[in-house]
Amino acid sequence: MRYAVLGTGEVGRTLGGKLVELGHEVTLGSRTADNPVALEWARDAGERAGVGTFAAAASGAEVVVNAVGGRVALTALRDAGAENLAGKVLIDVCNPLAFEDGRLRLSPVESDSVGEQIQRAFPDARVVKALNTVNCRVMVAPHLVPGDHALFLCGQDPDAKELVTALLGEFGWPRGRVIDLGDIEGARAMEMLMPLWIRLFQGFGHAEFNYELRRAR
Amino acid sequence: MRYAVLGTGEVGRTLGGKLVELGHEVTLGSRTADNPVALEWARDAGERAGVGTFAAAASGAEVVVNAVGGRVALTALRDAGAENLAGKVLIDVCNPLAFEDGRLRLSPVESDSVGEQIQRAFPDARVVKALNTVNCRVMVAPHLVPGDHALFLCGQDPDAKELVTALLGEFGWPRGRVIDLGDIEGARAMEMLMPLWIRLFQGFGHAEFNYELRRAR
Repeated sequence: MRYAVLGTGEVGRTLGGKLVELGHEVTLGSRTADNPVALEWARDAGERAGVGTFAAAASGAEVVVNAVGGRVALTALRDAGAENLAGKVLIDVCNPLAFEDGRLRLSPVESDSVGEQIQRAFPDARVVKALNTVNCRVMVAPHLVPGDHALFLCGQDPDAKELVTALLGEFGWPRGRVIDLGDIEGARAMEMLMPLWIRLFQGFGHAEFNYELRRAR
Repeated sequence: MRYAVLGTGEVGRTLGGKLVELGHEVTLGSRTADNPVALEWARDAGERAGVGTFAAAASGAEVVVNAVGGRVALTALRDAGAENLAGKVLIDVCNPLAFEDGRLRLSPVESDSVGEQIQRAFPDARVVKALNTVNCRVMVAPHLVPGDHALFLCGQDPDAKELVTALLGEFGWPRGRVIDLGDIEGARAMEMLMPLWIRLFQGFGHAEFNYELRRAR
């Protein structure tokens, strides 16, 4: 598959690297075509890795991964271009976190989510919220956390969720550990897990943890 | 121990009933001294069970459990009286949920929590947020959910958290499954789990589930 991974931060580089390793073609998208971090990533990642603007990356891709920060996601996706997202699966992995007055704050929250904002802004994209509840190293190597543990996803399009579930399988997530929370409004629940994640990270002193679900039936 | 359980809803009655069963004395508190639901509960629960106003219940108790709805918690606790809460462990199990325009909404959220509101309003109470992340039947019978699974707690007072951890042990929660999220601001993370809980409840069709934590170390 041809993937665009938008965002050259640790999340984007990690997801892009894993996708290349799995045999996919990946264009790491950023604001400019000559982003030095992206160029270095592509050089290290090998011949199936390329770089480009958000628009160039998205236009050539079959699947787009939004891995920019949640507070700039809409701007980056507008740069990518609605016409380059239309009809495509758009995996949104971001959280709308930012430091404000020295605290990590989540916004939008409760009555909205970035996942929903993206789906509203790009109604022809097939948005699936996924992976935002774990650290990026765990995203692509779930075995870093011992035992069974769960990922959530949500979105409007069952086929898009199925494609993402298959991709998660390539990353090492068994199908049975992928919990479908329903429509894209489930992104609120997923993004609102961040305050717990941050508290646990502070308590454990590392990011190699995840949630598992236990149920009576 | 002598407990006041404030609130005659399912959560209050379930917690009160379990506490009586464990040998504690419990006064179920409500707005009026002759609440028929409370009187019926006390009759069924046996001789260690009593009823009273919020103030009467709190004044006679060593430990107070806030089991009224999160949106009315401060009002109920003001009725209970700051002087009847001072110095006491106050276990806050509520979530600030209410239906608004046909949707379950959480408020306060993100920048505040009911747990913090209670601690600010009653600075001499030793507030511990706990148990709000599971259904009340699971609160007092964790074995309803198979396997190991976790509860969170938070608060300012280490001794109060230790007392609550011991009480959770009486309910059947092993000490190792009780995760201390730190100070009372952790209540934000705990209350913000509700949207996920609601989605899972809708998906599973029942409330007998819980989260487990997996960690590398």
